[in-house]
Amino acid sequence: MCQLLGMDCNTPTDIVFSFEGFRLRGGLTDNHADGFGIAFFEGHGVRLLQDDKPCASSPVADLVQQYKIKSENVIAHIRKATQGQVHLVNTHPFVRELWGEYWVFAHNGNLRRFKPAGGEYFNPVGTTDSEQAFCYLLEQLRQRFRHKPAREVLFHTVAEITAELRQYGLFNYMLSNGDWLIAHASTLLFYIIRQAPFGKAVLTDEDVAIDFSAVTTPHDRVAVIATLPLTCNEQWQQLAINELVMFSQGEIVLRDCIQPPQYMSVQEGLAVARKAGVSM
Amino acid sequence: MCQLLGMDCNTPTDIVFSFEGFRLRGGLTDNHADGFGIAFFEGHGVRLLQDDKPCASSPVADLVQQYKIKSENVIAHIRKATQGQVHLVNTHPFVRELWGEYWVFAHNGNLRRFKPAGGEYFNPVGTTDSEQAFCYLLEQLRQRFRHKPAREVLFHTVAEITAELRQYGLFNYMLSNGDWLIAHASTLLFYIIRQAPFGKAVLTDEDVAIDFSAVTTPHDRVAVIATLPLTCNEQWQQLAINELVMFSQGEIVLRDCIQPPQYMSVQEGLAVARKAGVSM
Repeated sequence: MCQLLGMDCNTPTDIVFSFEGFRLRGGLTDNHADGFGIAFFEGHGVRLLQDDKPCASSPVADLVQQYKIKSENVIAHIRKATQGQVHLVNTHPFVRELWGEYWVFAHNGNLRRFKPAGGEYFNPVGTTDSEQAFCYLLEQLRQRFRHKPAREVLFHTVAEITAELRQYGLFNYMLSNGDWLIAHASTLLFYIIRQAPFGKAVLTDEDVAIDFSAVTTPHDRVAVIATLPLTCNEQWQQLAINELVMFSQGEIVLRDCIQPPQYMSVQEGLAVARKAGVSM
Repeated sequence: MCQLLGMDCNTPTDIVFSFEGFRLRGGLTDNHADGFGIAFFEGHGVRLLQDDKPCASSPVADLVQQYKIKSENVIAHIRKATQGQVHLVNTHPFVRELWGEYWVFAHNGNLRRFKPAGGEYFNPVGTTDSEQAFCYLLEQLRQRFRHKPAREVLFHTVAEITAELRQYGLFNYMLSNGDWLIAHASTLLFYIIRQAPFGKAVLTDEDVAIDFSAVTTPHDRVAVIATLPLTCNEQWQQLAINELVMFSQGEIVLRDCIQPPQYMSVQEGLAVARKAGVSM
């Protein structure tokens, strides 16, 4: 069902529990068998693990679960190819350096007829619409700002460029520079913010539960964002259609949303995706 | 002893045998205990595996050995920190996109007082002289060429920029875009080209042997480049001091070397490295 998974926290946290449910959707409980990728920020460094094998049976995914990498910002993606061959070069997340920072991007959707001119600063290596959109986004930011602007200015510029890009089609995405995580919903994206008092969570895709109170401190705050809720006993919040949100330190710090917000039902979201040729 | 390892082949080949000897130098048979990294090109895609744990005991290095990733171009690096904290962000190899290709770079050496101005196109994320040199090299290439020039022009431009950079100190490095691998020796770099008839090779660092004739075809050609020879029963060739070489399809296609070539003995090379504060 799910293609995107993100995490933003105020303390380095491992994503093993969420990833466990997520990876099963990559070829076992769902049909996303065309590779997967996960990017972990450790400070401003990025660890990118990718595989063109199905996530459910990938040895790289095994490493993610065994190694319990702690990170403040994570973006993961399970791929069902729509454009571009199944190949490592087309596997999300994509990484580029902008203003001396690594930026990480993953996309769930399908942008049709989006063929921008070659960039001066950023160009895709593979053949996906997603990498092209990412490069276009960075190109526009770099063209407008020689140096990184203030966070609010940056966010509103990203919102502008996103509004331009989503005219081409489905554009659910996540973007992070290690300090914050930006999420955009064309159709379906849900999030949960976990903080004290921590409780127990049960995965939707598997008979696995965790008691977060045993593995956290009272100061921890963790936002998890996913295409569909990963747990069945917690209250996930939904992003509105065309809403853009910036998470930092495990909470929402900036939002851009058309008023009044409109929400898509899961059924509608899946139907839109099918119509666009995107597997959700 | 060894810090850099590269491979360039005419057919996707796994580097497990060479990596086995190499990784033992990362904290077990030598003192390079400050992390390691290895980049595999698969076509024009890059798989980058890094760890800030010692290579000899790293679960990421275990994955490299178990997964037997096949690649036409590989660059690996074991780190003994000279400049910059031990942190993922400072772990080689470094990756950037130039002209719609991923470029991978790893450095063994120490460039003192090299503080270039901020780049228009490329800037370091971490704090090493190595990443700074890589960004400077790419910046110079991009400033001179809007589009990728012919291979000979590219090579000679890299040679020019390299000559400028090595004035700052020890600059053994490897660079690849997936089509070719460029190696530069300030002091010690050795290579071997394996082709039919393939024989048996025995690792220097460990009691392990391989019979390449059992795992190759008669058309395979594999160049392996390393700071010091990895096997004890084969004839490795040495790069001359300040020599720059481009390997492609498992053979040398371009060379830039001051005539007559001068070679450094292993003893001299180790002494120079110690003096520069670089562990070899």
